[in-house]
Amino acid sequence: MRGWTDGCRTGVAVGRLTTRRRADHVSAGVATARHETLAVEEPLEIRVGGAALTVTMRTPGHDVELTQGFLFSEGIVAGREDIATARYCGGTGEDGTNTYNLLTVTLAPGVPTPAPARSFVANSSCGVCGKSSLDAVQTQSRYVPGDDAVTVSAAALTALPDRLRAAQTAFAATGGLHAAALFDFTADPAGSLLVVREDIGRHNAVDKVIGWAVERGRIPLTGTVLLVSGRVSFELAQKAAMAGVPVLAAVSAPSSLAVDLADRFGLTLVAFLRGDSMNVYTRPDRVIA
Amino acid sequence: MRGWTDGCRTGVAVGRLTTRRRADHVSAGVATARHETLAVEEPLEIRVGGAALTVTMRTPGHDVELTQGFLFSEGIVAGREDIATARYCGGTGEDGTNTYNLLTVTLAPGVPTPAPARSFVANSSCGVCGKSSLDAVQTQSRYVPGDDAVTVSAAALTALPDRLRAAQTAFAATGGLHAAALFDFTADPAGSLLVVREDIGRHNAVDKVIGWAVERGRIPLTGTVLLVSGRVSFELAQKAAMAGVPVLAAVSAPSSLAVDLADRFGLTLVAFLRGDSMNVYTRPDRVIA
Repeated sequence: MRGWTDGCRTGVAVGRLTTRRRADHVSAGVATARHETLAVEEPLEIRVGGAALTVTMRTPGHDVELTQGFLFSEGIVAGREDIATARYCGGTGEDGTNTYNLLTVTLAPGVPTPAPARSFVANSSCGVCGKSSLDAVQTQSRYVPGDDAVTVSAAALTALPDRLRAAQTAFAATGGLHAAALFDFTADPAGSLLVVREDIGRHNAVDKVIGWAVERGRIPLTGTVLLVSGRVSFELAQKAAMAGVPVLAAVSAPSSLAVDLADRFGLTLVAFLRGDSMNVYTRPDRVIA
Repeated sequence: MRGWTDGCRTGVAVGRLTTRRRADHVSAGVATARHETLAVEEPLEIRVGGAALTVTMRTPGHDVELTQGFLFSEGIVAGREDIATARYCGGTGEDGTNTYNLLTVTLAPGVPTPAPARSFVANSSCGVCGKSSLDAVQTQSRYVPGDDAVTVSAAALTALPDRLRAAQTAFAATGGLHAAALFDFTADPAGSLLVVREDIGRHNAVDKVIGWAVERGRIPLTGTVLLVSGRVSFELAQKAAMAGVPVLAAVSAPSSLAVDLADRFGLTLVAFLRGDSMNVYTRPDRVIA
């Protein structure tokens, strides 16, 4: 899968989740030189239809999933069939090697090429505010999480953060990576772990998870819980709603607009999921205490 | 400062840092309805020269500082004198009231109007990679933190996170806001707190702090420590370097590219600043153990 094709590389580049740098560790006033493991951050330029669509600072690895998830969340593609090819093209460093930081996407015939720097919020009309942001998402959404009849026990939810941490290989080494995971509750009342992805950017970790689902035709994500390791912003709630996720759970706090979006779309929003407690902000009927 | 001018509002809108929403708190399987305080998230559209330059999801308040800091960090303005006016124009909601989410900037005569969606990384040439990102920042930078001879004791650094938390009014209520603070070490070996700003986005909190300095002609920020409550990405290190900050300190982890940028620009990067310990990744000569 790493062979040359028209000067491009196809398939999966080796992920570079972590790297090491020298640092002085100072403790109680005493400095000791040592090597520290860091989360890798590199730009990824996504080109669609020959033009740069966006550049995101991300942790390398699962870049095709990241790109698919981003294109899906932005409403540019509706599924895997809308993408003809996604390849590492050009983007060679000074020594001529591929940087794996430039991904060129060819859309399937008939799929409109997006304008650069497209975003829900930028597209909203005059009178920019939380409500216009929600309206813009509603215009783009194909799925309605509100229709999903799945229920999840509070006990199963409280077990998810530990399961995420156990599957999160790079965080422990760096302390610097966000994670997102999908759990399937359609058959297993404890939830089956489908996929975990890590990234320096929380939105990228979620895009990688959604791109994984796009790749497998598992959209809409009915019957699932999307768990994120940090806070929930508007952007994360938007990605969950777009993918038809019925339950979004977070270890940390939600924003006001994330709660408003969850309320509008019938998404169950759980946050501060810690120990045996949590807050359920919207659609609490899906959480069985 | 809130009077109408040409249909626009000038001056400072009331900040809306927090709001309240109903939630079910579930603990040990028992659900209790209560009201939770949330960090407010709203879009801010920044218009320059009549066109939308960017939309950022931010916590309302200090929007003019946010805008000044953003424009400075992007290399669009070099100082306060490059901005003629910054006003809340248009952006009225359905009831005709100003949303305070649309800030219109007029640049001073002779200052070039930027292209929309401008960014360092997007401007970098083919061969997009960490190095090209660093090159792009170097092209734009006016100041060299590496020349700053300030020194800071490890003991003074370890005291800063508690001082930040004490000044951070909204985090305790919401758990959902990032903070950034500037401490001046030019005269006071313990550091004088100059400004603290909170925001749902860590880059916005830093832009507000830098915009505060732009407003007061306190650029370059020689002799200062910029403290951030979370992690350090490339983007945050870039903002610090652009503003001539000599020491960037963080409570959590840095990314690989943040360390590379600090190394390139002679910025002292301190991270994992917790209890009486820290890691010093670059220019440790400024930290006196």
